[in-house]
Amino acid sequence: MKKSSTLLTVNPETLTITANLASCDIIKDAMSRYENIIEMDTKKAEVDTNLVKMKSLSIDIKDNECPGYPQLNMNESYNLTVDESSTLSAASVWGVLRGLETFSQLIYVNELKKIQVKKTSIEDRPRFKHRGIMLDTARHYLPVWILLKNLDAMSYNKFNVFHWHIVDDQSFPYQSKRFPDLSAKGAYTAKHVYTHVDIKRIIDYARLRGIRVIPEFDTPGHTASWGKARKDLLTPCYENGTPGVGKYNSHGEYEILNPTLNRTYKFMEDLLGEVVEVFHDNFVHLGMDEAYHACWATNPDISKFMVQNGIAKGDYSALEEYYIEKVLKIVDSLNRSDIIWQDPIDHGAKVPQNAIIQIWKGSKNTAGTWEEYMTNITNQGHQVILSSCWYLNYISYGQDWKKYYQCDPLNFSGSDNNFEKVLGGEACVFGEYIDHTNLLPRLWPRASAAGERLWSSNDVIQDVESAAFRLDEHRCRMLKRGIPAQPILNGYCGEYDLEEQNDRTAQTESKTACTTSSSMKNNYSGYLTLYYIVLYCIMSKRMV
Amino acid sequence: MKKSSTLLTVNPETLTITANLASCDIIKDAMSRYENIIEMDTKKAEVDTNLVKMKSLSIDIKDNECPGYPQLNMNESYNLTVDESSTLSAASVWGVLRGLETFSQLIYVNELKKIQVKKTSIEDRPRFKHRGIMLDTARHYLPVWILLKNLDAMSYNKFNVFHWHIVDDQSFPYQSKRFPDLSAKGAYTAKHVYTHVDIKRIIDYARLRGIRVIPEFDTPGHTASWGKARKDLLTPCYENGTPGVGKYNSHGEYEILNPTLNRTYKFMEDLLGEVVEVFHDNFVHLGMDEAYHACWATNPDISKFMVQNGIAKGDYSALEEYYIEKVLKIVDSLNRSDIIWQDPIDHGAKVPQNAIIQIWKGSKNTAGTWEEYMTNITNQGHQVILSSCWYLNYISYGQDWKKYYQCDPLNFSGSDNNFEKVLGGEACVFGEYIDHTNLLPRLWPRASAAGERLWSSNDVIQDVESAAFRLDEHRCRMLKRGIPAQPILNGYCGEYDLEEQNDRTAQTESKTACTTSSSMKNNYSGYLTLYYIVLYCIMSKRMV
Repeated sequence: MKKSSTLLTVNPETLTITANLASCDIIKDAMSRYENIIEMDTKKAEVDTNLVKMKSLSIDIKDNECPGYPQLNMNESYNLTVDESSTLSAASVWGVLRGLETFSQLIYVNELKKIQVKKTSIEDRPRFKHRGIMLDTARHYLPVWILLKNLDAMSYNKFNVFHWHIVDDQSFPYQSKRFPDLSAKGAYTAKHVYTHVDIKRIIDYARLRGIRVIPEFDTPGHTASWGKARKDLLTPCYENGTPGVGKYNSHGEYEILNPTLNRTYKFMEDLLGEVVEVFHDNFVHLGMDEAYHACWATNPDISKFMVQNGIAKGDYSALEEYYIEKVLKIVDSLNRSDIIWQDPIDHGAKVPQNAIIQIWKGSKNTAGTWEEYMTNITNQGHQVILSSCWYLNYISYGQDWKKYYQCDPLNFSGSDNNFEKVLGGEACVFGEYIDHTNLLPRLWPRASAAGERLWSSNDVIQDVESAAFRLDEHRCRMLKRGIPAQPILNGYCGEYDLEEQNDRTAQTESKTACTTSSSMKNNYSGYLTLYYIVLYCIMSKRMV
Repeated sequence: MKKSSTLLTVNPETLTITANLASCDIIKDAMSRYENIIEMDTKKAEVDTNLVKMKSLSIDIKDNECPGYPQLNMNESYNLTVDESSTLSAASVWGVLRGLETFSQLIYVNELKKIQVKKTSIEDRPRFKHRGIMLDTARHYLPVWILLKNLDAMSYNKFNVFHWHIVDDQSFPYQSKRFPDLSAKGAYTAKHVYTHVDIKRIIDYARLRGIRVIPEFDTPGHTASWGKARKDLLTPCYENGTPGVGKYNSHGEYEILNPTLNRTYKFMEDLLGEVVEVFHDNFVHLGMDEAYHACWATNPDISKFMVQNGIAKGDYSALEEYYIEKVLKIVDSLNRSDIIWQDPIDHGAKVPQNAIIQIWKGSKNTAGTWEEYMTNITNQGHQVILSSCWYLNYISYGQDWKKYYQCDPLNFSGSDNNFEKVLGGEACVFGEYIDHTNLLPRLWPRASAAGERLWSSNDVIQDVESAAFRLDEHRCRMLKRGIPAQPILNGYCGEYDLEEQNDRTAQTESKTACTTSSSMKNNYSGYLTLYYIVLYCIMSKRMV
């Protein structure tokens, strides 16, 4: 990035945004969305009549294509020049979305409530192509409105994957047309479900923001709620020779899918067949984590099956592998690719090399550190996504965002051969203690720290102390856009924090301008006078 | 409490509530408030036509008095009998408020969406007379609407003190009429202030809910923001013979009030004189915590003053004591009593015995445990308030409410002579990482655990595991009343959690009924069949 000290002003009401592909719904919606966002960001501020006006932004999409759904290999790079006539050019519409976010962040309101923007020239592209947020809608149901609002927040932080951990032991809110009983019996209530219409709405909303929606149907473990309608798919656990009897601290009555039955695979084929019609991403997440073997070990039919199929006595990892191979083949036959959690690899199962492995262990008491897992699993030829550093449901007092910021997915032992297999990372929020009451302030701006790490060039974002002020300003920006992001420093956000908070989708809100406390300004002014970096998060007025 | 198994039903629309003192604004407002709350709690549910109706509640206030503001020694006891014609009798209006809260909690909606209530007879009174929530409006400003909403939540949990840590180093939002510059220069902005009108609104709102509002003007430390307008009150810190020079990690440029100047005391007299006109509680909190002596030690005028006044060289605790004595005398002359944090006692200062001491140390690295402090400070004859266990701004993963629940203010070495000096406790929320975005889910239902501990008889609330289900139900109750209380268990709250959340004062909201997940019910049904206890928190349908 090249920022000059030459200031321009902007009149949001007369600023014209044009594009060569304005008929494409993604571009059309983005132009109107960012016009609104810029008006929101500059509300109650005035044009600076001492300055020349930036009058227009002209958008140029090189491939001249209006695509369907965003995918792993979409091109998100863009070039942005801010001047009296600004230009934003990108290989594809996806780069335009990222460029518009940056453009909106460059426009700011100064202490005298004048709207300003610096002449700037930016070449920008993501460091990692997979930058996700995982939400869990099974432990607590998250209403559609909050999922949409979170997609807004993701777009303000250039995340591009919503990994939807949609079902789990606790509930099955996915409403299947083929198997309506799954949610009729497995959801908390008939209203705690996601219909195909809900899902379409979420996917369409995400698409317009360049965000992929990847569903996770976690098997063979984590399927207790599936058993409410389809106990016949679960393995009966035995105790003292009796099936369907639980044992405290060991296994339930029925748990984990039964990998010995043909009907299990027929069911998975039918369910996943429907899933890939509803979700449009090329990838499906199959979970495969925490498939505890205790229940299998009690069941005589499982033992018999293992003998018949040449699986060594007690080698339940081989049985797990048998299951994995068959389910991954189903996904393959549906023309989709797989993501799975790392557990089968840990168990020594041979997983097809084209499966992407999501690494989540290593931050707690596990056999290896996440760095070791990254080395080992990329050595095995798998592409990987890192989540170990970013379990945002875990909380602690103070500025824990710093540790999220300092985690670098390439900071492990390896060669370029390893590093090129790192697709990116995901911040995960499992829902034991999370619902609509606290999701957004819990997630934002803590996830923003991971967001900057995953987008920005590594050499520009080492300094966690200066990041604090960018992050603080960005949390104020999110506040004024309607995201209740919690504070990370003492201070205030202009007049926004005086107003009553409405948890509605951001675009309908209009909030007053966001500034920072004078003490922070004093701490920070003049820290940097000019820099030439490709920096994602905030082209802050206090950064230059 | 005596609950029978005889069920009644209720029609909220025809239920009549009458009182012998209905002309008293406190009673009038409470009757209409709880009529609304009962309607909210039973929304979308129906009268159970198989049952006899509870038709009326008749309220009898024994002293027949409509008081001004609630005070430390108010009588909050009440007797409640639920029958076809229910009765609530109390010595004073304050007991009526607590009884109405219990009454509202007894009415529930069953699985078939029928409104039910059990015939019940309750004699109830608080275990401790001081049950407070401390909020900090200096590190982040909290808008008036959220303070009001928090008063609602407090009333649902029978708290009776809002300890308002209104100013601190970071900002001075109290708008003084006598000294308007204090907030004009010391508040974050001209809008981040509490005017006398705002404060009156908050106090009136609290009074109607039987909640005292005790302001804290923390001195002599924690006064950096005071210095923005009145640097002449702060001690100039010296470095290398020059006044007004800070030293890293030791002292600022100017800090801590200057105890050697007459103008300091004149100012305190004038400010506190105004404060006691605005606030109506018999107590003023004077802070007195963390008065670090490093700055005083650098200042030659301080040394000179100490020599002149016979204070031993280096005995800054004696200087602190000098300050304390003079300020406490001012409060005495204003016909108010004092609360201070424990620090002066720790420093060995002789504090007048009528000052109430708030104990906050002992949960972290301090010289003693909180139990030791309780023993020692009550031995010195002081009445005490415990907060050490309940710093709710500190967070950790999981069900940390359990440790709040398990802390008992009388669980220390002492005799009745010590125990009778324990007035109660306060849950504190310092605002480093708290503002309107996260205050309510951070505080509720975690503070509810402290609330039950402070209200209920000790022998009935030992079982933390059963408390989890009461607390979970109570969080659902708060949700439907408009408080975004966060979850403590997996599950859901009826249909409430599907709806968009509006952070408005609870009374204006109407939400659907709150139930609990079937898995919880299965875990819990039949656990107790009848009990005779004075239990505050939730007269839960699942408790009997």
